[in-house]
Amino acid sequence: IRTVPSSAVLMEKGNYRHFMEKEIHDQPEGCQRTIAAYVDTLGGRVAVPGDLDFAKLERVQIVACGTSYIAGVIGRYLIEQLADLPVDVEIASEFRYRDPAIRPASLVIAMSQSGETADTLAALRYCTERGMQSAAIVNATESTIAREVDVVWPIHCGPEIGVASTKAFTAQVSVLISIAIAAAKARGRLSEAEEQRLVKVLLEAPRLIAEAIGLEDAIRDIAVEVSKAKDVLYLGRGPMSALALEGALKLKEISYIHAEGYAAGELKHGPIALVDDQTPIIILAPFDAWFEKSASNMSEVMARGGQVVFITDTEGAKHAPAGAKVVVTAPSSDPLISALVMSAPIQLLAYHVAVLKGADVDQPRNLAKSVTVE
Amino acid sequence: IRTVPSSAVLMEKGNYRHFMEKEIHDQPEGCQRTIAAYVDTLGGRVAVPGDLDFAKLERVQIVACGTSYIAGVIGRYLIEQLADLPVDVEIASEFRYRDPAIRPASLVIAMSQSGETADTLAALRYCTERGMQSAAIVNATESTIAREVDVVWPIHCGPEIGVASTKAFTAQVSVLISIAIAAAKARGRLSEAEEQRLVKVLLEAPRLIAEAIGLEDAIRDIAVEVSKAKDVLYLGRGPMSALALEGALKLKEISYIHAEGYAAGELKHGPIALVDDQTPIIILAPFDAWFEKSASNMSEVMARGGQVVFITDTEGAKHAPAGAKVVVTAPSSDPLISALVMSAPIQLLAYHVAVLKGADVDQPRNLAKSVTVE
Repeated sequence: IRTVPSSAVLMEKGNYRHFMEKEIHDQPEGCQRTIAAYVDTLGGRVAVPGDLDFAKLERVQIVACGTSYIAGVIGRYLIEQLADLPVDVEIASEFRYRDPAIRPASLVIAMSQSGETADTLAALRYCTERGMQSAAIVNATESTIAREVDVVWPIHCGPEIGVASTKAFTAQVSVLISIAIAAAKARGRLSEAEEQRLVKVLLEAPRLIAEAIGLEDAIRDIAVEVSKAKDVLYLGRGPMSALALEGALKLKEISYIHAEGYAAGELKHGPIALVDDQTPIIILAPFDAWFEKSASNMSEVMARGGQVVFITDTEGAKHAPAGAKVVVTAPSSDPLISALVMSAPIQLLAYHVAVLKGADVDQPRNLAKSVTVE
Repeated sequence: IRTVPSSAVLMEKGNYRHFMEKEIHDQPEGCQRTIAAYVDTLGGRVAVPGDLDFAKLERVQIVACGTSYIAGVIGRYLIEQLADLPVDVEIASEFRYRDPAIRPASLVIAMSQSGETADTLAALRYCTERGMQSAAIVNATESTIAREVDVVWPIHCGPEIGVASTKAFTAQVSVLISIAIAAAKARGRLSEAEEQRLVKVLLEAPRLIAEAIGLEDAIRDIAVEVSKAKDVLYLGRGPMSALALEGALKLKEISYIHAEGYAAGELKHGPIALVDDQTPIIILAPFDAWFEKSASNMSEVMARGGQVVFITDTEGAKHAPAGAKVVVTAPSSDPLISALVMSAPIQLLAYHVAVLKGADVDQPRNLAKSVTVE
C-alpha cells in the first residue's frame, strides 16, 4: 500500500475531480508506455522481457483476484486463440484452498496491481513449490509477488490511487496481448508478416482508447438514466463476456448499483427471467465474430420489454437491430485490442453514475485498494 | 422437449402444488436411483458404466449451460481433489465460438438434462471432431447428445417438468461424485478401504438430502424475509462457491429477485460495496476446510451492517460467529456429498420466495425448459 501525502494527492489530481477520472484519462498514455516496453517498435516485433521459452510451455495458469482476474480471462481468450497454448484462469482465493491438479510443465502468471494481494501470493507459492515456472504482471515491481517470480512483467501506467482499478486493468490487458503475440510467434503460429500486422494493431490501441474516451459526453447522458436503476445486467460474448464482468464490477464498486455480468449465451438459461422495463441491459458487442449472436440476444431482450444500451463500434452500429434505447459507437478496432477500446465506455459509465449518485468515487464504502489480508 | 398431457400432469403432481416442489421432494429417491446405477452396493465399490480408462486420461473438459454448468463446476472440485485429474469446465456458448486450445488425450463430458441443448451439442462436436473421447451426463438417453458420445452416463431421477432444474441437478452431481471416486481409484489415488469409505458416504446422501428437505418449515419462514428483498448476495467457498451460483440462479429464475452468487474470497475485491441492511447475504458454509474463512467473511459482512442468512450444518452451527440474522442447520456430512445436502435448502428457499411473490413457479416468465436453439 502506497501512502500518498495529501499535498501530493492534490497536485496529482490535476484538473480532475477524482483520481478515477484522471486515471481513466491516463489510459492512452499508460497503455502506450506499457506497450512500448513489450514491443520493438522499429522492428515491428514483440519483445517480451525475460527469457521464457513459450514454445516449451504445455499450459499457462493465471491466478488473480477482482479486476486482475478479469484481465486474465481476456488474456486467456487471446493466448488460446493466437498461440494454441491452453490457459486456465482462476480466482486466487479458490485456487489456493482446493488442492488443484496442476502439472509442472506449466507457467503460473500471478496478476496483482499492488503485487501484495494475499490470496494471489499464496496461489503463486502453491504453484512454484510444485515446480512451475513463474511470472508476475504487477504495477509495483518492488512488491512481494514481484520478488518471488522468475520473470516480472511490469505495467507502466504509473501509480493507481482510485480504489476501482482502471488504468492498471488496461495496462495488464496490454501486457497479455503482447504475451499472446509472443507465444504465438514462438509456437510457430504466426509468420513475420502476421506478427508485424498484430504489432501494428497493438500500437494503434492508445489512439483508439483516446477516441473511445472522447465518448464521455454521450456516456454522461446515459449515466443519468442508469443512475436511476436498482439493477443492471451486462452481457457480452468472447472477450466481451469478461468485459461484461468488469463493467458490472465497476458499477458495483463505486455506484453501489447491483450490476451483474453474464456471458450472453447464458441469457436463456436463467438471467432472462430478470428482464423487465426497469433493468437496463448493457450489451457489449463490437463487430467481431460474436456480433451476430450478441445482436440476436439484444433482440430477445427487447422482445421481453428490456431497455438495451448497445455498446458497439462504427461497423457494428451499421448492423445493429433497431430498437435499442441507446447505441454507443466506439471506434472500430481489430478484435486483438477491442477489450482495450471498449474499456473506456464502461469505466466512464460507472464513474458518471457514481458522481451523479454522490458516491465517494475514489474511496467507495467497505473497499480498500489492496487486499493484503486473506 | 416432452409434451405431457394435462391429465397426466395433474396425476404426476400428486399432493404438491407445483412440479418444482414435487421434484425437490423427489431428490432422495432420484439420487438413490442414480447412485445405485454407479455403485456396486454389495462390493462397496464404484461401477461407472462404460469402458473408459480414467488412468490414461490427461484432462477432462466439461461443457454445459446453466444449472448443468454449475454441476460441472462442483464435479471439477471433486475430480481434481480426489483423482489429481485436471478438469476444465466451460460455458458451452463461450467454448464453441472461441477457438479453444484443446488436447486430444482428453475426455469431453457434455452435460445437459434434455440432451438437446444446442450450444452444448456444438461444443461436444468441436471436441469429438478433434479426436477427443466423449461422454454425456443426460436425463434423456435417446437425445441427440446421448447418441453422439462414446459413453452415456444417465441420471435416473425421472422426467423433470419444472423449468428450474432441481432433481436433475443433484442427480448430475451424484454421477460426478461417482466419477471422481472411479477416477481416483483408477489413478492409484485410493486404497480399497478408502474407496469403500467414500462409497459408504455416497450411499448415505439420499437419507441426508431427505433430512435437509425436512428444514422446509424453517426455510418458509426465511422466505418471508427474503421475498421482501430486491437483491440478494449468495456466497461460498470451494464447492459451495458453485452452489452459491446455483442458489442465485434459482432465485433469479423463479422469483425474479436479482440474486448473485460469488466466491466468498472475492467479497473484498468488489461485491462488499453492495452490503447494506437491505440486501440479505446468504452464506453457504458447512463445517469443511473452508468453514473458518467463510465464517470470517460472515463477520466482515456483519461489521458493515449486512443481514446474514448462514446456511451451515450441525457442526458448523456450533462454531458460527454470533450475530447472523438466521442460522439454517442442515445435517453434517462428509465434504464429498455436502453439495448434495446443501442443495435442498437453496432450492426450497427459491421455491417459497417465488410462491410468496405469486410467481408462476413451473413456467417462469421468459424461460423455456430446454434451450434447443442457439
